Amino acid sequence: MKLHWSPRSPFVRKVMIVLYEAGIEDRVACVRTPVAMDKPNLDLLPDNPLLKLPTLVLEDGTAIYDSRVICAYLNELAGAGLLPAEPRARLTAERRQALGDGLLDVLLLYRQERNKPPARQTPAWLDAFGLKVDAALAALEKEAPALRTTPLDLGLIAIGCALSYLDYRFADLGWRDGHPGLAAWHQDFSKRPSVTRSQPDDAAA
Amino acid sequence: MKLHWSPRSPFVRKVMIVLYEAGIEDRVACVRTPVAMDKPNLDLLPDNPLLKLPTLVLEDGTAIYDSRVICAYLNELAGAGLLPAEPRARLTAERRQALGDGLLDVLLLYRQERNKPPARQTPAWLDAFGLKVDAALAALEKEAPALRTTPLDLGLIAIGCALSYLDYRFADLGWRDGHPGLAAWHQDFSKRPSVTRSQPDDAAA
Repeated sequence: MKLHWSPRSPFVRKVMIVLYEAGIEDRVACVRTPVAMDKPNLDLLPDNPLLKLPTLVLEDGTAIYDSRVICAYLNELAGAGLLPAEPRARLTAERRQALGDGLLDVLLLYRQERNKPPARQTPAWLDAFGLKVDAALAALEKEAPALRTTPLDLGLIAIGCALSYLDYRFADLGWRDGHPGLAAWHQDFSKRPSVTRSQPDDAAA
Repeated sequence: MKLHWSPRSPFVRKVMIVLYEAGIEDRVACVRTPVAMDKPNLDLLPDNPLLKLPTLVLEDGTAIYDSRVICAYLNELAGAGLLPAEPRARLTAERRQALGDGLLDVLLLYRQERNKPPARQTPAWLDAFGLKVDAALAALEKEAPALRTTPLDLGLIAIGCALSYLDYRFADLGWRDGHPGLAAWHQDFSKRPSVTRSQPDDAAA
């Protein structure tokens, strides 16, 4: 299989963590496909018309996306057990995955917006993004005791990647302040070999 | 159950179509919860820290999101058969759902951007959004014969809602031009009672 990959995409990172956790990283060739909101990469066009990472091309040439579809597929393929079978536990994992992914969506837009020249910024958006990040962190702090007793699954991976992205691109926000339970969970999460191996690489081209 | 709802959100519409198709709309009370990128609605805060629609609150008070999680939950609850059981067909439905949802994400951002005063617009974004919409339509036109022979599922619902949103907010793009197969599929889709009943309502407050 071929994975359209980048060393700094948090959604790609989710897939890499699943590959490492499942022990099937040797079945996937990672191909560096840089994308940016203002620089669409037409190399992706045949595989994903939305030109987004990650996109996975299967052995038979079928391309699948987005990260949620890819993670579920790889988990199933490898029997990695990263989605609970019991319906209510599964629903919780799916809701957490949507929370992690949704937080990442907010963060990616937030970063774009705050990197603009001030005259092109929309202050109400910056306020709204900040509010959502604060609200997500408050909700996750409440949930931290439950996170700590849940075996790793696709929901926790998404949340972990979102928090790690805060460290990577929003270190100034100091997200750990006021969220000690979440910080403790994230510290454990960050020690997993799958997580250390998939750290963003600023040295990469 | 309680659904945080709006008459104009295309992601809410996906959920309404599933409810109508499953025949369980009487089990859900729709609560009008207006949201906008520049006006976060704090009524949503206890149920969804990302302040997004749709959000579904179950009988026991558990809140779930996003539209993909809600649609899968309701489909399962009602045994509505909107996700194929056969793994490859299911993967196709999931990939199509990601394409429809991803196209909607692009369209929502595209609309925000083109409604800004020109001095605050980012021309490279407008170009990129236009390119992605064109590419998605071209890919869907290629896939139109397959869409026409696929029984309704969550993938087709997402694609149908994205195309209907083009009609609603981007009529000027004339998306049917050059996409006759897709237009024909969408014409059939639009005749479904679940789709006519969930049309955006501009008269609603």
